[in-house]
Amino acid sequence: MTDSSTNMRLKLPITCFILEIILIILFGVLVEYDEDTDAKKFNKHFNTSMEHSDAENDFYYRYPSFQDVHVMIFIGFGFLMTFLQRYGFSSVGFNFLIAAFSLQWATLMQGFFHGMHGGKIHIGVESMINADFCTGSVLISFGAVLGKTSPVQLMIMAMFEVTLFSVNEFILLSILGTRDAGGSMTIHTFGAYFGLMVTRILYRPNLHKSKHRNGSVYHSDLFAMIGTIYLWMFWPSFNSAVTEHGDAQHRTAMNTYYSLAACTLSSYAMSSLTAHDGKLDMVHIQNAALAGGVAVGTAGEMMLTPFGSMIVGFLAGIISVLGFKYLSPILEEKLKIQDTCGVHNLHGMPGILGAIVGAVTASLLQSLNPTNNNLTFYGREASYQGGIQAVSLAVTLGIALIGGLIVGFILKLPVFGAPHDTTCYEDSLYWEVPGEEAGHEEQLTAVKSEESDKLNS
Amino acid sequence: MTDSSTNMRLKLPITCFILEIILIILFGVLVEYDEDTDAKKFNKHFNTSMEHSDAENDFYYRYPSFQDVHVMIFIGFGFLMTFLQRYGFSSVGFNFLIAAFSLQWATLMQGFFHGMHGGKIHIGVESMINADFCTGSVLISFGAVLGKTSPVQLMIMAMFEVTLFSVNEFILLSILGTRDAGGSMTIHTFGAYFGLMVTRILYRPNLHKSKHRNGSVYHSDLFAMIGTIYLWMFWPSFNSAVTEHGDAQHRTAMNTYYSLAACTLSSYAMSSLTAHDGKLDMVHIQNAALAGGVAVGTAGEMMLTPFGSMIVGFLAGIISVLGFKYLSPILEEKLKIQDTCGVHNLHGMPGILGAIVGAVTASLLQSLNPTNNNLTFYGREASYQGGIQAVSLAVTLGIALIGGLIVGFILKLPVFGAPHDTTCYEDSLYWEVPGEEAGHEEQLTAVKSEESDKLNS
Amino acid sequence: MTDSSTNMRLKLPITCFILEIILIILFGVLVEYDEDTDAKKFNKHFNTSMEHSDAENDFYYRYPSFQDVHVMIFIGFGFLMTFLQRYGFSSVGFNFLIAAFSLQWATLMQGFFHGMHGGKIHIGVESMINADFCTGSVLISFGAVLGKTSPVQLMIMAMFEVTLFSVNEFILLSILGTRDAGGSMTIHTFGAYFGLMVTRILYRPNLHKSKHRNGSVYHSDLFAMIGTIYLWMFWPSFNSAVTEHGDAQHRTAMNTYYSLAACTLSSYAMSSLTAHDGKLDMVHIQNAALAGGVAVGTAGEMMLTPFGSMIVGFLAGIISVLGFKYLSPILEEKLKIQDTCGVHNLHGMPGILGAIVGAVTASLLQSLNPTNNNLTFYGREASYQGGIQAVSLAVTLGIALIGGLIVGFILKLPVFGAPHDTTCYEDSLYWEVPGEEAGHEEQLTAVKSEESDKLNS
Repeated sequence: MTDSSTNMRLKLPITCFILEIILIILFGVLVEYDEDTDAKKFNKHFNTSMEHSDAENDFYYRYPSFQDVHVMIFIGFGFLMTFLQRYGFSSVGFNFLIAAFSLQWATLMQGFFHGMHGGKIHIGVESMINADFCTGSVLISFGAVLGKTSPVQLMIMAMFEVTLFSVNEFILLSILGTRDAGGSMTIHTFGAYFGLMVTRILYRPNLHKSKHRNGSVYHSDLFAMIGTIYLWMFWPSFNSAVTEHGDAQHRTAMNTYYSLAACTLSSYAMSSLTAHDGKLDMVHIQNAALAGGVAVGTAGEMMLTPFGSMIVGFLAGIISVLGFKYLSPILEEKLKIQDTCGVHNLHGMPGILGAIVGAVTASLLQSLNPTNNNLTFYGREASYQGGIQAVSLAVTLGIALIGGLIVGFILKLPVFGAPHDTTCYEDSLYWEVPGEEAGHEEQLTAVKSEESDKLNS
Repeated sequence: MTDSSTNMRLKLPITCFILEIILIILFGVLVEYDEDTDAKKFNKHFNTSMEHSDAENDFYYRYPSFQDVHVMIFIGFGFLMTFLQRYGFSSVGFNFLIAAFSLQWATLMQGFFHGMHGGKIHIGVESMINADFCTGSVLISFGAVLGKTSPVQLMIMAMFEVTLFSVNEFILLSILGTRDAGGSMTIHTFGAYFGLMVTRILYRPNLHKSKHRNGSVYHSDLFAMIGTIYLWMFWPSFNSAVTEHGDAQHRTAMNTYYSLAACTLSSYAMSSLTAHDGKLDMVHIQNAALAGGVAVGTAGEMMLTPFGSMIVGFLAGIISVLGFKYLSPILEEKLKIQDTCGVHNLHGMPGILGAIVGAVTASLLQSLNPTNNNLTFYGREASYQGGIQAVSLAVTLGIALIGGLIVGFILKLPVFGAPHDTTCYEDSLYWEVPGEEAGHEEQLTAVKSEESDKLNS
Repeated sequence: MTDSSTNMRLKLPITCFILEIILIILFGVLVEYDEDTDAKKFNKHFNTSMEHSDAENDFYYRYPSFQDVHVMIFIGFGFLMTFLQRYGFSSVGFNFLIAAFSLQWATLMQGFFHGMHGGKIHIGVESMINADFCTGSVLISFGAVLGKTSPVQLMIMAMFEVTLFSVNEFILLSILGTRDAGGSMTIHTFGAYFGLMVTRILYRPNLHKSKHRNGSVYHSDLFAMIGTIYLWMFWPSFNSAVTEHGDAQHRTAMNTYYSLAACTLSSYAMSSLTAHDGKLDMVHIQNAALAGGVAVGTAGEMMLTPFGSMIVGFLAGIISVLGFKYLSPILEEKLKIQDTCGVHNLHGMPGILGAIVGAVTASLLQSLNPTNNNLTFYGREASYQGGIQAVSLAVTLGIALIGGLIVGFILKLPVFGAPHDTTCYEDSLYWEVPGEEAGHEEQLTAVKSEESDKLNS
C-alpha cells in the first residue's frame, strides 16, 4: 500500500535527526537551570532558612499538576484520536512523536519570547508545563488533519505552529496583559482555528474514497474513551497548573470540576435529543463532554463561582453537540473544511465561548474579583481589562487563521509524502501492521475448510 | 433493537436538563467558596505570614489524593465494568453520566448535612473528595444492576442514593462520632447493600434470555483490567484522602498498600484452588484482589500496623473469591439477587469485614492508638468507641436495605424505559453502535465471495 | 490444553499461601512505622512547632512520585507486555501477582540490608518507593522470560531476585557510596542481565513451535502502547522519586523529561531508517522510546543539564533500535538467548550507557556539580567517585549474571510446571479464557448458514 512518494525511509529520519540536532545545539547554547533546579542557586537563594527551603521549591506546588497535564497530552489526546478503526497506531504514535518534538521546541520559543536572563533561557517545572500547553495546541490542530497527513508534514506543521503559538502568547500575556491561565484563547482557540485553516488549504475533493475507514469500530471507541476520560478528569489540573499558588490554584481546579460535570449532563441530553431514535452518539460523548473544560479556561481562575462555572459548562456542552450534529456537515460541504475530529466543536467554539466569558467576568464582576495584585489585573480597571480580553481573542483568531493559511500552503509541497485520497485514515501506509486476531483467522480457516469439505463431499 | 418504551429521546434529555437546572439554581443560592478557595478569605486568614500561607492551603495536602480518587471513580469503576462483551459503551458511558451528576448532587447534600455556614455551603478540595466518595457508593450499586437498567433509571437511583448516603454519613460521622475515613461502612457496605436490594426488587425471572451476553470476551477482560489495576494502585490514596494531615494520611496510605498486596496473593491462590483444573478466573482477579482495600477502609487510619493490614487483606481476598464461587450462585437462586458485578463479594462482605476490624481495632488496641485528639476518638474510651463502630454498621445496613427497597419499587415504574429481559447487557439499545472491525468484515466478505465463486464454477 | 504437569491447582495456591504467611509473620516480628507514619513519634518529633510539622512530613514530598512509580510498575510494565496476541491475561495478571509479592518481600530485604533500628525495620513512603523499584527490576527480568514460564516459576524467580537485588543495592549504595537514584545500574542493568541469564539457562530449542503466537495483533499493540506511554510520562517521577528534596528532585525530573523527548525522536528516525520500506515498527516505538529514561537514571540527579540529557537520550534511542534490529537476532541464534520483550535493548544496553554516563559525569564535571554534601559525593574527590561508579557497574553485572545462572537452574526443576515448547505465549494454559467477540461469532454463524442455504438449495 506504499508507493515511493509516501515512503518515509529517508524523509522521516532526516527530518527527525536534523530537528533534534538543532534542538540539542540550541539547548547547549541557550538553556540553563532556573533557581529552583540549580543546586547552587537554590541553596544560595534560600540560605537564610534552610529548614523551609525545600518545601518552597516550585516543584512541590506544580509537579503533580504537571504530571496530570502530561497525561492529558500523551494519553488524553493520543487515545482520544484512536476512535478511527484503522488509524490507532498513527493516532497514538504520531501524537507521541510530534508532542515529544513540540515540547522541546516550545521550551526554546517560549523561553525566547517570555524573557531571557542574561542571554539565557531559565527552565523549571513551570516552563515544562508551558511547553506541554503549547504542545496541546499543536495536537488540537493534529485532530483537524488526522488521517490525511504524513508524519513529516506533521513535524513541519508543529515546528511552525509552536513558533506562531509563542508569538501569539507573547502578544497576549506579555504585551497586552491578558489573563488566560487555562488557555481558552492561547491554546484552544489558537490550535483549533490554525488547524481548521490548514485542513481547509489541504482540502481533498476525493476524500470520499477513504470514507469507509473514516469511522470507528466497537473497540476503537473504547480506546478513545480512555483518552476522553483522562482529559475530563485532569482538566482541573490543566486549567490550574500555572495560576498563582494558593487560593487561585485551588479555585481554578474547583471551578473546572463543576463546569465539566454540568457539561457532561448537557452533552448526554443533547446527544439523545438530536438523535431520531434517542440513541447516544459516542462522538458527542467523547468530545462534547469536554467542552466545559475549554470554556472556563480563561475565567476559571477568577471569582467565577461554581454556579457561574456550571452555567458555562452547561452551555458549552449544548453548543458542542449542536456543532457536531449540524455545523460540521455544513463546514465540510460549504466551506470545504474536513475536520476529522471535529476540533471546531470541542476547541473552536468552546474556546471562543471561554474567551467571551473571561472578558465578561473580568469586566462586570469587579466586586467578585479578589484584591490581590494578580487578579485585579495589575492595577487595571476591570472594564479596561475586559476590553483587553476581547481584543486578545481577535488577535488570536487573526494569527491562527493567517498562520494556518501560510503553513497549509507549505504543507502542500509534494516532498512531504502526504497519503493519496484513497489511502487516508490507514495505518499500513506508515506502519508495519500485524494481522487481526489469531482466533478469528483460525475460525475463518475453520469456516473455509468446513465449507470446502461440504463442497467436496 | 429499540422499541418505543426504551427510546430515550425525550426521557433522558428531560431528566438531565431538569436535574442540571435544579443543581445550578441550588448552587447559585447555597454554595460559596471556602476560605482556602476564596481569594479574599484566604489572604485575610493568613494575613500575618504571607510567606507561608500558600503552602498551607489545603489544596497541596489533598489535591494529589483527590486526583487519584477521581481516576478511581471515572476510570476505575468505569472500566472495571467493561468486562461485559456488548456493554462497554454503557459501562464507561453511564458510569460517566451518573458520576458527573452524583458529584454535584453530593456536594449539596453533604454540605447541607455536614454543617452550613450562615446558610451557605462552603466548598473546597475536601468537599470535592467527599463528593467523589459519595459518587463511588452510587457506582457500587450501579455494579449490582449493570446491564439491566436504563440511564434514566440510573439517574433516579443516583438521586435517591446520594440523599440517603448523606443521611447515613451524617448519622455516623456527625451524630455517632464514628471513624470511617476510607468508607468501609459509609461507602462500600452502604453502596453494596443498597444496590443488592434494588436488584432484588428489580428481579427478572427471564434474565436467562440475555445470558449469552452476560459474560466477557478476550479484549473486554483486558479493558476491565485497566479498571482493576487503577482501583488497586490508587486505593491507598482513597483511604487516606480525608484523614488528618501528616502522619495519619501517611500511615493510612501505607496500611492500605500492604493490605492490598497480601490480598492479591490470597486471591490468586484461592482462584486457582477453587477451579477444577487450577486455571485462574479473570472475575476473581478483577475483583477479589481489591477487597483488601475495602477491608481496611475503617481501621487503615488507626495504628493497625502493616502486619495487621496484611492479615486483614489476606482474609478479604479469601472471603471474596469464596463469595464469587459459592455464595453468588446461591444468592441468585435462593434469594433472587441478580448481582451482575458481584458487588456483594467485592464491597459487601469486605465492607462488613472492614467495619468489624475497625470496631475491634478501636476497642482492643488502645495502647496502639495514638495520643492526639482525633485518634483517641475525641476523648472517648476505646471500648465505647468500639461499640459505636459496631452500632454504625447496623445503622448503615438498615438504611441501605430499607432505602434500596423503596428506591427499587420506584425504579419499577414503566416510564423509566428499562430494557426487556431479552435485551439486557446490550449497548445497542441506548447507543449508536458501530460495526465490528473492518478487517474482519473484509475477511468475511472475502470468504463469502470465495465460496460463491466455487459454487458458481 | 492443560496436562497434569502444568496444572497449577495445588502448586500455585501452596506457593502463594506459604510465601504470604511467611511475609505476614516476618512483618509482625520485624516491621514498625517510622517516625513519619507513627502518630506518637511524628508528634513527638515535631513538638516544638506543631504548625509546620504536617507539611514537613515526607509524605508530601514523595507520595505523588510514589503513585507515579506505582502506575509504572502495575500499568506500565503490565500493559507493555500485552503486545503478545494470546498472552494479555498473563502479561497483566502475572505482572500483578509477582509485583504484589515482590514489594512485600523487598520491604523486608531492603529494610534488613539498609539498616535496622534496634532490631526493627522502619517503613514509610520512601521504603514503599524503594520496594516498588526493586519490583521493577523483577518485572524487567519477567520481560525476558515472558510467555515461557509458569506463575510458580515466576514467584520463585522473584523471591531470589529480590534478595540478590537487595544485596547488590546494599553493596553499591551503602558500602561503595555509589550514586544511582534512578537505578540505571541497580534496577535496569541488574534486572536485564539477571533475566537474560535466566532465559539463557531456560533455553528452549523447539520454541519455534510456538512462534505463531509470539507476535502482536492490531489491538494488542494498542494495549501495549498504554504501557509504553505511562512508562514514558512518569519516568521523570521514577528517576526523581528518592533523590534529595528540593532542587535535586526538581532537576532530576527535568533532565529525564528532556532525555526522553530527544530519545523519542531518534527512535522514530531509526525505526524508519532501518526498515526497507521506511515503515515504523511498533516494537521499536513501544520500547526504544523509553531508553532515554533508563540512560539518565544515574546522572539525572547530577548537574547533567538538559543539553547533556538530550544527548544521552538521543544516543539511547539509536542504540536501542539498533539492538532490536540487529543484535537481538544474533543473541538468539549465537548465544541462545530468547529475550521475549527485548529487555537487553530497553534496559540492558541503555542501563550500561546510563552507568557510564554517570561515572563520566561524576568524574569530569566537578565544576558543574553542586556544592551540597550529597552531590559532592560525601566529600569525595569527583574522579574517585567516577571510579566508584564504574566499579559499581562491574559488581552489578557480576551479581546479576551469577545470580541469574543459579536461579535459572533452580527454575528448571520440573515441579514448577513450565509450559511445553508448543504451548508458550498462550493464556489458556493458566487462565479460563472466554471466546472471541460475540459479534464475530454471530457473523461467522451467519456466513455459515448462508452458505449452507446455498448448498441446500
